[in-house]
Amino acid sequence: MSTSFIPASELPADDAPPAAPDFGPAARLTCRECGSSYALGAAYACIECFGPLEVGYDYVDVTRERIESGPQNMWRYACLLPVASYAGDEPNLNPGMTRLVRADNLARALGMTGTLWVKDDSGNPTHSFKDRVVAVAQSAARRLGLGTIACASTGNLAGAVAAAAARGGQKSVVVIPSDLEDGKVVTAATYGGTLLAVNGSYDDVNRLCSELIGDPLTEDWGFVNVNLRPYYAEGSKTVGYEIAEQLGWRLPQQVISPIASGSLLTKVDKAFREFVQLGLVADTPYRVFGAQATGCSPVSVAFREGHDVVRPQRPNTIAKSLAIGNPADGPYALDAVRRSGGAIGDVSDAEVTEGIRLLAETEGIFAETAGGVTVAVLRQLLASGAADPAAETVLLNTGDGLKTLDAVLGHVGPTAVIDADVDEVTRVLTTP
Amino acid sequence: MSTSFIPASELPADDAPPAAPDFGPAARLTCRECGSSYALGAAYACIECFGPLEVGYDYVDVTRERIESGPQNMWRYACLLPVASYAGDEPNLNPGMTRLVRADNLARALGMTGTLWVKDDSGNPTHSFKDRVVAVAQSAARRLGLGTIACASTGNLAGAVAAAAARGGQKSVVVIPSDLEDGKVVTAATYGGTLLAVNGSYDDVNRLCSELIGDPLTEDWGFVNVNLRPYYAEGSKTVGYEIAEQLGWRLPQQVISPIASGSLLTKVDKAFREFVQLGLVADTPYRVFGAQATGCSPVSVAFREGHDVVRPQRPNTIAKSLAIGNPADGPYALDAVRRSGGAIGDVSDAEVTEGIRLLAETEGIFAETAGGVTVAVLRQLLASGAADPAAETVLLNTGDGLKTLDAVLGHVGPTAVIDADVDEVTRVLTTP
Repeated sequence: MSTSFIPASELPADDAPPAAPDFGPAARLTCRECGSSYALGAAYACIECFGPLEVGYDYVDVTRERIESGPQNMWRYACLLPVASYAGDEPNLNPGMTRLVRADNLARALGMTGTLWVKDDSGNPTHSFKDRVVAVAQSAARRLGLGTIACASTGNLAGAVAAAAARGGQKSVVVIPSDLEDGKVVTAATYGGTLLAVNGSYDDVNRLCSELIGDPLTEDWGFVNVNLRPYYAEGSKTVGYEIAEQLGWRLPQQVISPIASGSLLTKVDKAFREFVQLGLVADTPYRVFGAQATGCSPVSVAFREGHDVVRPQRPNTIAKSLAIGNPADGPYALDAVRRSGGAIGDVSDAEVTEGIRLLAETEGIFAETAGGVTVAVLRQLLASGAADPAAETVLLNTGDGLKTLDAVLGHVGPTAVIDADVDEVTRVLTTP
Repeated sequence: MSTSFIPASELPADDAPPAAPDFGPAARLTCRECGSSYALGAAYACIECFGPLEVGYDYVDVTRERIESGPQNMWRYACLLPVASYAGDEPNLNPGMTRLVRADNLARALGMTGTLWVKDDSGNPTHSFKDRVVAVAQSAARRLGLGTIACASTGNLAGAVAAAAARGGQKSVVVIPSDLEDGKVVTAATYGGTLLAVNGSYDDVNRLCSELIGDPLTEDWGFVNVNLRPYYAEGSKTVGYEIAEQLGWRLPQQVISPIASGSLLTKVDKAFREFVQLGLVADTPYRVFGAQATGCSPVSVAFREGHDVVRPQRPNTIAKSLAIGNPADGPYALDAVRRSGGAIGDVSDAEVTEGIRLLAETEGIFAETAGGVTVAVLRQLLASGAADPAAETVLLNTGDGLKTLDAVLGHVGPTAVIDADVDEVTRVLTTP
């Protein structure tokens, strides 16, 4: 894998110490590439092959009843996450259980005859799905005795980490590209903590964070999306769990996810497969689709060209939350899409703005650019026949339009600016 | 009352026609001033005395069990609102059941020993409590056959109306002051519908809308906060209902609400009293507190000076969502505060910004200016002894910081802007 992975330190394989931290049903870290197994810790890359590590579980007593009796947030799935049973009782933002909105108007606009749903993660505390992954990483940092939570961010993660740390009584160090939207920079800064703006791209920021991990300065830091990434990434499974539960314990036929690092898409797929394996839902076929902006479309290009390897790009798109030119989970996203019979598309920035407007005008949901990408790609995949308009489909909206106003600024505005006079209103409304 | 109220048309008193629209448990409109009673319709002012009309109910079978078996949104209280039992099944934004966040860090920062909670209505679909009131008004418009929903707005309502209309398949006409924050204007515009920006204050906008009601142009319009106001305002009761239910079916000892028109504060008080009357909670004493910005503090001034009448002001504050210089429900808010033994305070714009930052830094909740007002006034009332630091207290956060970035812009920002270099990070973090 890429050079951004460094080896797990001296953790003994399959040999957890007696007083191992409580990670609930999580039992080990397993290399996705070679299958090597490690004790749970702040490790994220295989010593043997440098492959990325993923949490492995020994699940016990996972039932619908147990989940349904849990809180109205993501901690209802604590028995399926690498967290102690009491994780939800520790100070955190309690994200999750966002609305699954039946989107009949949007379906009609897209020419769909199957039911379309929008999983609207803008309803999370800091208005993106990142609150979910941070909540799991925050818990892992506590278990591992790391007092500072840190991250490399394209924006949404910045706010999620800073807010979670504020509430959790932890320190935070957030590293962002210096050209991010005001809405994301100011928000992250308001929560307090250390906010470092880096002259460079997200990939530069990510590389800097990987380099920082070896430094004594960061001994006490958990980088949520670097050395805590195995835990962090599992938080995205809750999006998939919630979709299945909110549909009445069954799977949709199609799901369409934006791709940044590719992690969310793969974890939604993992959640569906786990629910099937655990007997929580029937084993019905589903297809996974991915969405990127053309200005940063390394996974879409690899899909189209039939490659297994994702060639890095230099991002240039208004969809900054998806602007990861060297996506860590790109190959796994490709695999999930191909295995399920799905597809990946990419759209221009103009189509992103149209996608935002279409979702807002049809369903009253104001998405950030990533949501506009996903709507526009769904439209494209329906037009090309890659996606089935008659299939029940779930579209993931991962963020909030208030954070990316620039995408619509200049495209929308008041119908008219008038004086406070009835005649002026009449003139505006009756003039064709 | 003020001249902005016009008489109810020819509605027969206490004499609903046989095929009356289905408003669920709502039975009549009653004048708050003289007690005159009217059939349910698009009326909002008493023929006899020009007093404002309020919905009267004949409640049946309201039990905790019935409410608890309802959906995880405000429609669980449909049996307590002027809506048909099926209102929640019609296309709407399904707001409500926002988080009640236990705010131990903020309590500590404020020197409180009693439990402090934040009712965080930024979790609603368009991120303010206005989604609740609009949902009830949208339902009323349907029952009354009005195809366009309209409003005068300080910003949050604009987005809530435009979004609800988009999803509901209704037309919308939203009227705002032209100097609103970008976040509110652009958001409202993105949902579509007609958006009229008026050169003037909110009070000018409000007066214009009252004048429009007599005009043939608006025959088909329901102004949610003018001629549908009796229904609309009842939506705010759900904030109070949720607080009591989320506390485990009991009342807090203190609640602190921002005051714009004054309606929210009075409806939370009404909700608590209804729950007591219906036997849903024990009759324990509570005090209601109000919060305004000094730059628009007509109710706070009336409280301080011992007046029953609220003298209008010309607003000049960054808290634009509270900038109503002539608040329709000011006298009723005063009454609720005085009756319960509460108080009202007002704070400077600088204190508003401090309040926003304090809430964000302690609880990871990024509030709009109205939330900053409420936090800062709570601090003030605790300092003066007007509020009890040992009492269990609920603070209402009614909106989202992403809509009022200007309030913190210039006050917060990155800790440092650096190159992508470990040494630069070390320098920034180790330099005192």
